[in-house]
Amino acid sequence: MNRPLVIALPGNDEMAARIARDLDGDVGELESRKFPDGETYLRFRTDPKGRSVVLVCTLDRPDPKFLPLAFTAVTARQLGAARVGLVAPYLAYMRQDRRFHAGEAVTSTIFATFVSSAFEWLVTADPHLHRHKSLDEIYSIPAKVVHTAPLIADWIAANERVPLVIGPDIESEQWVSEVAARARAPYRVLRKERRGDRDVQITIPDLREFSGRTPVLVDDIVSSGRTMIETARRLREHGMPPPICIAVHVFLSQDAYASLREVAADVVSTNSVPHESNRIDVSVLLADAMVALLGPHR
Amino acid sequence: MNRPLVIALPGNDEMAARIARDLDGDVGELESRKFPDGETYLRFRTDPKGRSVVLVCTLDRPDPKFLPLAFTAVTARQLGAARVGLVAPYLAYMRQDRRFHAGEAVTSTIFATFVSSAFEWLVTADPHLHRHKSLDEIYSIPAKVVHTAPLIADWIAANERVPLVIGPDIESEQWVSEVAARARAPYRVLRKERRGDRDVQITIPDLREFSGRTPVLVDDIVSSGRTMIETARRLREHGMPPPICIAVHVFLSQDAYASLREVAADVVSTNSVPHESNRIDVSVLLADAMVALLGPHR
Repeated sequence: MNRPLVIALPGNDEMAARIARDLDGDVGELESRKFPDGETYLRFRTDPKGRSVVLVCTLDRPDPKFLPLAFTAVTARQLGAARVGLVAPYLAYMRQDRRFHAGEAVTSTIFATFVSSAFEWLVTADPHLHRHKSLDEIYSIPAKVVHTAPLIADWIAANERVPLVIGPDIESEQWVSEVAARARAPYRVLRKERRGDRDVQITIPDLREFSGRTPVLVDDIVSSGRTMIETARRLREHGMPPPICIAVHVFLSQDAYASLREVAADVVSTNSVPHESNRIDVSVLLADAMVALLGPHR
Repeated sequence: MNRPLVIALPGNDEMAARIARDLDGDVGELESRKFPDGETYLRFRTDPKGRSVVLVCTLDRPDPKFLPLAFTAVTARQLGAARVGLVAPYLAYMRQDRRFHAGEAVTSTIFATFVSSAFEWLVTADPHLHRHKSLDEIYSIPAKVVHTAPLIADWIAANERVPLVIGPDIESEQWVSEVAARARAPYRVLRKERRGDRDVQITIPDLREFSGRTPVLVDDIVSSGRTMIETARRLREHGMPPPICIAVHVFLSQDAYASLREVAADVVSTNSVPHESNRIDVSVLLADAMVALLGPHR
């Protein structure tokens, strides 16, 4: 049996190394640089011929990443790779999954079509599934989703003695209840009214019965951090201590991260998107999903 | 007959307006913005249904541009556009057209495949054709190239009384001789030895017979500006005055542009890539090429 060849796109070296280790595969080398005119040069320094190739590329800020990633996938096949799959710990373009207004680009399905034509399979962690029940509705290749809720619950149980898990909105209730049950903690969800990309109104439920507990805010994506910062402030008005903030996927800029740390007891994230706050490793889940998807021969 | 609908991707509004005017078409409106997480939102504000759609997007620094451009093309078709073509005044990924070393991505042909699957036709100005004789060798859609040499020659003839046209290397000789003949000027080409992306050795020919003439350096792409700056310095050592520097496609950063202006009498470019130095308008050529390619019904 051929060992799978795990290759990192730029910025994904650590995750690729972890996955290769979990998968008992080899890390392959991809040379990548920019020409002075902004074009990308790519070269396989490890021969993918006959190998099962796993490209690792998390897809936060996806626009500049897509073309180099697609070039790499096509090249792997041209060079004789047996199969080429994608591990995207964070998967992009999961929001615009319908034409809400006339003329809109339904980027979710178009992006899925592009990825499905470049790769033979896909593994990702907790994609932002709204209206779609499963990735199979938009991805035409075998796609496996890993759920980070148990890892987050275990982190909470190991690090906070008397937590109160707080979810961002009613839609998150099922996920939040799963985290809370496994962490053996109570939970509540907020009411959130979105007035624009960057303007959100939050309503705090009655939390008097939980005084003495540490609020643990959980959310799938934290990008500007505004909702969590605002929630932390509102919790303090209700007499609660500074919360622990946990994100599955974190996109915080340096400034936003600093602002959030000012009002939070701690800021914690999975390593789906590389960030200073990464404390929960999802690589084993991703590797297990690959084995489940591809079978023992990968 | 339906008037063609010309739509600018971000940063291409001026070129789109010129092409729409030259083509007797309408400028359509595309709303485009970035979400906080770096994804692109796109919406046709002008209905493309039943129209011949012309997307205008120059492809310098192509990686962040490709995905929004492809989303827009697919969406135009979903919304019922009769046909969707691309005017890319500058066309990217024309250099790596072979696997020079084992394992390299042949980005030129892969990029051509991607563009050919997103669009029904392509018009561009002076692509960097090396080994390929024509775009048809790599693009599977009808592709029309416009040649800017006559415009450059006319600019020289109108702005410099006693020019000496100087080309960057022996491969450029045919193009340089065409520019010089139409400008009614003598020409010479340099000998250039490339030692890396950013390191080039230049040899100046004997120019004694041309004393009193103003050197006019012409090149297809000026990105770091180093070759032109070095050439200007070497020309001065040979007793020549500061040159006029002309680029078809200009990628100069602010700093590089300032450095080049210090040693040049003037810096001039076509508007294929928007830049302060743009002085030669290629929009009419692009519009004419579209009419030639698509016929009177476009």
